[in-house]
Amino acid sequence: MIIDIHGHYTTAPEPLGAWRDAQKAALEGGPAPDPAGPRISDDEIRESIEANQLRLMDERGIDVTLFSPRASFMAHHIGDASTSVAWSRICNDLIARVAGLYPTRFKPAAMLPQSREGNLDVVLEEIDRCVDEHDIVAVNLNPDPSGGYWTAPPLTDSYWYPVYEKLVEYQLPAMVHVSTSVNPAFHTTGAHYLNSDTTAVMQLIQGDLFADFPDLQIVVPHGGGAAPYHWGRFRGLATALGKPDLDEHILGNVYFDTCVYHQPGIDELLQVIPTKNILFASEMIGAVRTVDPTTGHYFDDTLRYIKAAQLDDAAKADILTHNARRVYPRLDRRLTALGLV
Amino acid sequence: MIIDIHGHYTTAPEPLGAWRDAQKAALEGGPAPDPAGPRISDDEIRESIEANQLRLMDERGIDVTLFSPRASFMAHHIGDASTSVAWSRICNDLIARVAGLYPTRFKPAAMLPQSREGNLDVVLEEIDRCVDEHDIVAVNLNPDPSGGYWTAPPLTDSYWYPVYEKLVEYQLPAMVHVSTSVNPAFHTTGAHYLNSDTTAVMQLIQGDLFADFPDLQIVVPHGGGAAPYHWGRFRGLATALGKPDLDEHILGNVYFDTCVYHQPGIDELLQVIPTKNILFASEMIGAVRTVDPTTGHYFDDTLRYIKAAQLDDAAKADILTHNARRVYPRLDRRLTALGLV
Repeated sequence: MIIDIHGHYTTAPEPLGAWRDAQKAALEGGPAPDPAGPRISDDEIRESIEANQLRLMDERGIDVTLFSPRASFMAHHIGDASTSVAWSRICNDLIARVAGLYPTRFKPAAMLPQSREGNLDVVLEEIDRCVDEHDIVAVNLNPDPSGGYWTAPPLTDSYWYPVYEKLVEYQLPAMVHVSTSVNPAFHTTGAHYLNSDTTAVMQLIQGDLFADFPDLQIVVPHGGGAAPYHWGRFRGLATALGKPDLDEHILGNVYFDTCVYHQPGIDELLQVIPTKNILFASEMIGAVRTVDPTTGHYFDDTLRYIKAAQLDDAAKADILTHNARRVYPRLDRRLTALGLV
Repeated sequence: MIIDIHGHYTTAPEPLGAWRDAQKAALEGGPAPDPAGPRISDDEIRESIEANQLRLMDERGIDVTLFSPRASFMAHHIGDASTSVAWSRICNDLIARVAGLYPTRFKPAAMLPQSREGNLDVVLEEIDRCVDEHDIVAVNLNPDPSGGYWTAPPLTDSYWYPVYEKLVEYQLPAMVHVSTSVNPAFHTTGAHYLNSDTTAVMQLIQGDLFADFPDLQIVVPHGGGAAPYHWGRFRGLATALGKPDLDEHILGNVYFDTCVYHQPGIDELLQVIPTKNILFASEMIGAVRTVDPTTGHYFDDTLRYIKAAQLDDAAKADILTHNARRVYPRLDRRLTALGLV
């Protein structure tokens, strides 16, 4: 069984975007959007999934995708906490419907109703709700709800601790994932996403978060940003900061996904980061949707790179299957309940 | 001849820092510091260099270092343009004294008097002055004078064009290099530096700067941040943005240094980026000053990684010597004038 731990619903039916547009217009004085949310039929969902993510999963041989709302549409910088609460509920409910329609193929991960003002009470409530109503298996946590101005405290700040307590209570890993950049300096998927990954790793090195939360699991997407490429730098900085070896300091709790879109990058990742800390993912359909003219295959067909890597079969199986089932215990339970072992 | 294109005067004698402290105190109402700058003797300079950079250059076999003021001390977020003008003049004059004391070992690169308010007239004046008085061979350009809040326009914005015109006029390459982060989200050397590199590459991909400045040379330090590790992502994004292949779009004008502090990272860089676009550098003495316990050698002894890489001798000579003399024509002229061919 091949598990992709990083997929977003980037192809959601049009009424979802229209509802969000109406919500944004309401912030400017327009009429309020329907509080019941957009009307989307099961057939519309099936069409949007089967022509896209499910088609590519089948073509590539991916069995299960951990599926969450479109990251760039989270846009926590828009409005206030109430704006994000309404939008998160709609997006998370839609993800749950996808998972309900394809129970053996998609498992739900939730976005959180974060905001620039930083009210975490509503975040905790949405986690409770998504656990109760949707049996989610993970969440996406945005370290920069400002959209590229980085006004929130570092991930190691006690500000975030109520969220971590909740995640540990429910055995929910958090993927650290920013949303759209509204800062013209940062291209969203080319700079802001990668910078966030690099920043998160360095924050975790500077702090001692896992001394306080030994059971917290943090997933850093996009191959860890710059971190594995600069692993020597990070190891040296950890020493300079008086921290233990990174294996001990963070690699009991931090995982990198394989959203690195060429063979040499994947090879570097696999060489530097312990196999137990690598989770297969493609972020499909996501940032890069084109075919690499030098290979004739999609850039984001990361399964090809893993299969072609110099790694023994046991290590590949860990990256493609076993690590995900270990790191996401709720995913493992749900798959096991379906007889998928 | 081995040329290191990225060294900072991180070991400057103590009066330099004391002068800066006085300048900062003056901004808070304290007495003005001596407008003549700190008093530092040639012997103090020699001691600070011979015990540090020059010792390591000799130990490692580096002949010439392109030397600039300490990057984290540029701190363009402090005060206004006049603050930065005074501080830049002092720092650049000190670098010129180092180069004057060791004409065959150090060549000067200037910091620029940038500021949050963004007055570029003083930047142009300082470039003129440093060319006239010190015959500088390069400059460091800070894409984020705010110190981690990223309030300046992208590097492709016409705001920067007067600087580029001046750089092209003088054949001065610009290294894109931020300074201290005062944003608690970003560790200065572990996150902010690398994020700046990644951000700069993506800005250059988004724009068409080299259509307007075909002779402008941009050096992205720290191995290009995350860019070479994610080269597939960047190639795919360029396609999605309707840009030409990156070889054509940016690699006629953009260079990456080798400040990547472990063998797998260097190997990835050398495999992905054309040899003509790679410049040897160690950023010594810089961000990481410790010994890698797994190798027994300094993390920043990047010459070891280049020598150990699977690359033919001609390619290594390009990276260690010839590329620098081609990209920095003023460096080449000064070395040639000394009989160093």
